[in-house]
Amino acid sequence: MNGKTDLETLIEMMAKLPGLGPRSARRAVLHLIKKRALLLMPLADQLTRVGQTVRECLNCGNIGTASLCAICESDKRANGELCVVEDVADLWAMERASVFKGRYHVLGGALSALDAVGPEELRIPKLLDRIAAENVSEVILALNATVDGQTTAHYIAEQLEGRIAVTSLAQGVPVGGELDYLDDGTIGAALKARKAV
Amino acid sequence: MNGKTDLETLIEMMAKLPGLGPRSARRAVLHLIKKRALLLMPLADQLTRVGQTVRECLNCGNIGTASLCAICESDKRANGELCVVEDVADLWAMERASVFKGRYHVLGGALSALDAVGPEELRIPKLLDRIAAENVSEVILALNATVDGQTTAHYIAEQLEGRIAVTSLAQGVPVGGELDYLDDGTIGAALKARKAV
Ligand SMILES: [Zn+2]
Ligand SMILES: [Zn+2]
Repeated sequence: MNGKTDLETLIEMMAKLPGLGPRSARRAVLHLIKKRALLLMPLADQLTRVGQTVRECLNCGNIGTASLCAICESDKRANGELCVVEDVADLWAMERASVFKGRYHVLGGALSALDAVGPEELRIPKLLDRIAAENVSEVILALNATVDGQTTAHYIAEQLEGRIAVTSLAQGVPVGGELDYLDDGTIGAALKARKAV
Repeated sequence: MNGKTDLETLIEMMAKLPGLGPRSARRAVLHLIKKRALLLMPLADQLTRVGQTVRECLNCGNIGTASLCAICESDKRANGELCVVEDVADLWAMERASVFKGRYHVLGGALSALDAVGPEELRIPKLLDRIAAENVSEVILALNATVDGQTTAHYIAEQLEGRIAVTSLAQGVPVGGELDYLDDGTIGAALKARKAV
């Protein structure tokens, strides 16, 4: 129980976060310690609060504080358009672009032969349920322009063939690029120019 | 009190950390939420623990859990050599290199005309006290090879002129470089080749 060990443990934890390595974790921890009352303790409290309250939406996989997220709760978002994304980060990217007024379905990843991710590992069965249960008129596939993302798009399009209109974001998403990296304008243009699969 | 706002607050806090921006903060927070039990809650607890226990060493400015840090507490480190660094990160870099067996003095920054940092803003008066009070035979200036770092080195060397041996890390520290970026070998070589100021 000495400070060095606690500190080292904290730095190791921070270093595991995506985007941080050992060096930036040390910098971040020193920065927090220097501003203990202003930054460190509020961050600890906020992490605890989020950890205790945040949960996955049972319907779409988005993050919220109730069994249904704010978007699934809102009748205004029930316009018949269902946007399928791989990850919550992609949902956030779509929302930041403020160009989509419908609801989302978060798959929780993409199909991957390499990582042995099949349809059962993703929220694909739930997607099919929703299309039947909710009044969905169009499924918009907003998946990453990666091999796995496009494999997933084709798989879903096949499942839905003849049942419902399926579109995907227009080219404009750079080949090999990930949705969460795009600027709002590119996302807006790609959504507007979406085409039937 | 909805999850979106708590989440947004958390992301904003994370985005303020050095090395993280809004995008990497979002990624990090989503990563933490996905591994709530394994990562998020332990990180929150560890931050709280460090925030409650860690304090600044009253003698040298290092970080520890008591009024004196482990290095100031240890008689083995009282070899008469006092290594002056700008920041705790630099002290850690020296310790990682495992080449210095004496004690440290953390200034808490460097003199800067631009940022109006004078000797009183740094731990320079305390440095002079320590040289008188402790049995210091050599002051080793391990300051960054930046304009401010070298200005600070010259200022301290002037204060101590004729009173005690003052050395600085040898060239080997790249011009414009910062100590915390260096590999152990470079730090070791620079310490070995240290020269009188
Ligand atoms: Zn939802
Ligand atoms: Zn100390």
